[in-house]
Amino acid sequence: MTERSPLAPAAFPQLPSIAGVTPHVARARYKDWDRCDLTYVELDEGTVVAGVTTQSKCPSPEVEWCRDAIPLGSARALVVNAGNANAFTGHRGRAAVEAMAAKVANHLGCKPSDIFLSSTGVIGVPLPVEKAEAGLEAAFAAPACSWEDAALTIGTTDTYPKGAHVSALIGGQRVELVGIIKGSGMIAPDMATMLGYIFTDAAIDASLLQDMLSTANRQSFSCITVDSDTSTSDTVLAFATGRAGNPPLTSMDDPGADAFHAAVTDLCRQLSHLVVRDGEGASKFIEITVEGAENDASAHRIALSIANSPLVKTAIAGEDANWGRIVMAVGKAGEPADRDKLSISFGATQVATGGLAVEDYDEAPVAAHLKGQDIQVGVDLGLGNGRATVWTCDLTHGYISINADYRS
Amino acid sequence: MTERSPLAPAAFPQLPSIAGVTPHVARARYKDWDRCDLTYVELDEGTVVAGVTTQSKCPSPEVEWCRDAIPLGSARALVVNAGNANAFTGHRGRAAVEAMAAKVANHLGCKPSDIFLSSTGVIGVPLPVEKAEAGLEAAFAAPACSWEDAALTIGTTDTYPKGAHVSALIGGQRVELVGIIKGSGMIAPDMATMLGYIFTDAAIDASLLQDMLSTANRQSFSCITVDSDTSTSDTVLAFATGRAGNPPLTSMDDPGADAFHAAVTDLCRQLSHLVVRDGEGASKFIEITVEGAENDASAHRIALSIANSPLVKTAIAGEDANWGRIVMAVGKAGEPADRDKLSISFGATQVATGGLAVEDYDEAPVAAHLKGQDIQVGVDLGLGNGRATVWTCDLTHGYISINADYRS
Repeated sequence: MTERSPLAPAAFPQLPSIAGVTPHVARARYKDWDRCDLTYVELDEGTVVAGVTTQSKCPSPEVEWCRDAIPLGSARALVVNAGNANAFTGHRGRAAVEAMAAKVANHLGCKPSDIFLSSTGVIGVPLPVEKAEAGLEAAFAAPACSWEDAALTIGTTDTYPKGAHVSALIGGQRVELVGIIKGSGMIAPDMATMLGYIFTDAAIDASLLQDMLSTANRQSFSCITVDSDTSTSDTVLAFATGRAGNPPLTSMDDPGADAFHAAVTDLCRQLSHLVVRDGEGASKFIEITVEGAENDASAHRIALSIANSPLVKTAIAGEDANWGRIVMAVGKAGEPADRDKLSISFGATQVATGGLAVEDYDEAPVAAHLKGQDIQVGVDLGLGNGRATVWTCDLTHGYISINADYRS
Repeated sequence: MTERSPLAPAAFPQLPSIAGVTPHVARARYKDWDRCDLTYVELDEGTVVAGVTTQSKCPSPEVEWCRDAIPLGSARALVVNAGNANAFTGHRGRAAVEAMAAKVANHLGCKPSDIFLSSTGVIGVPLPVEKAEAGLEAAFAAPACSWEDAALTIGTTDTYPKGAHVSALIGGQRVELVGIIKGSGMIAPDMATMLGYIFTDAAIDASLLQDMLSTANRQSFSCITVDSDTSTSDTVLAFATGRAGNPPLTSMDDPGADAFHAAVTDLCRQLSHLVVRDGEGASKFIEITVEGAENDASAHRIALSIANSPLVKTAIAGEDANWGRIVMAVGKAGEPADRDKLSISFGATQVATGGLAVEDYDEAPVAAHLKGQDIQVGVDLGLGNGRATVWTCDLTHGYISINADYRS
């Protein structure tokens, strides 16, 4: 991995084991590198699955495979290949996915549709099946690995491994949820994003888990953007082994369902922020909150218009309280807005209100806020009760260096 | 002006005078600089006007003024202020516009609504009325200036003055059209763009001129993007003095109307390309053509998705034939696309077809093409007959330097 993002957490967190989940890593050597690049996670029988995938019209065959398998609701293994996205590879890419699923299903004695797969890396080169098969053999034989090893192994241009942990009480029984995720460029989730995996020992219906994941996704992964570019391979999967021994959750009315749903949302949000904090070239983590919009969806679109504006992102990189560029981004969003009711703040300081600059506002706290790593931008449209928050990073020379030099 | 764009034309073109149009420039000193920053163009009585303005929901008061005045169809003067956009300045910004219009109308003995105004520069600082009034007095007294001086004076972060000229025959009478334009960042026209002005001696109905300008705009300014950021002040105005003596055009069925319409479109396209060639930090001029889409509108949206993708723009800056990023941008556009029917080319070389890379395609001509300054990207969706072309530039360290350092 390259130099660690300045926004990275100090260390990988302590994550508990999840009963029924056994991760392994191996070297498939998809690229000419000396690192593990194949992750194989074995799941106990009875594990249920939920997932959200990219809305791209050009998805990878792995995404298509997962889309077909998710509704069946059961899972026995997850395979993640790093270094080759296997996207836009025609029938050969599809054949590679089928071969991997068949091999793992044969190993476990289950249906191929119980096997979930993702690949990430270069687009347009079919995944070499022989390397994948040899990598799987090595993974089958390897001892269980740590979550940190698994998080490292699914990464590509990531500068640090990303994991998080939450827990919840269901009917007096504590359940654990662990998530790992990768991603730092081509991040503009459209209902789903990147490669993220959540493992829990909770007992829960697949369809209820899907509802919870879909809702959580709309409040987390769908609220982040690094560069407005949506990947062909974005996938978030949640696996529940049921080994915690809690009274199984089958509906949102069950005791503990609310707590578990909140835990899923919390975990998704933590994971999504870890991705933004590894945004390519990022030097600032930016939270943008839009209030007073006509409705929440409108607030969300305006917030994303600000978050994706290169002029706003470069201004914040330059620690410049350039609220004029925020006005511009509000104006171009195509959503209801009234210039003369607009208020804008950086941190706790309002810099513009009622359609013009606050005269003689105190620049010192604004300058101090912008020098920090965590930037808050607030916009009040003054129209209604719609509200949304999104998270992004700034746009720096680092992004250009990474992406103008990275060869396909 | 800063260092000239590497994509700039060798020299400002020779532009003819337009009968009935007299440009002047003056120093209003809107910023602490030693250059002309106020342009005043006097128009003979009988001049008709057409215009298109930004779709931003937070437009400047100048844009609102023009929106009100354009439908009245007549014009006697144009005033352009550089260095202060007067946008997001509340009632004080509006008052400044009214004061300038009143002063010019008084000078010419015409209605204030015959005066057209634009301002460009910093957002959020009310235009100082005294400076504007003194600048206008100086302009009234100044001799007529050249088109090059006028083009220089309307510029801000532009690195070269931009003008173009076409002519047409109407009923045997040659008419001239001259255009000047400014813009290099915050360029993502939404039906209109930047500040552009077209002057012609043709005799034509205001409403017909409006129809022609609106159509031309959709094929020129609406097809360019530098950074996906839409300005609060975008305005293109066309003024026709009627002094050429051609049989007046009143409908598209009139002899010469087609030729004149083609000339307007040609001029708009030339002007729009000059803006892209001055895109902030640009080192490559990129033409993106999408064919085989379900319809033209769909092709246009896909082409803009490619043109606005930071990953595509940085790849081209790096002279990298990274067609995987083009697949990504097609996929995220939200328009009908079938991965397995997609073809992609750089210059004359097809690099991917039928959903996968062309095996062993000749990389030499692709590498040579990408080393040049004029890059062509072709996408064939293989679905229908929809077609669109857009123009953009690459994304380089220069863009970051310009925009992370430029203070509000």
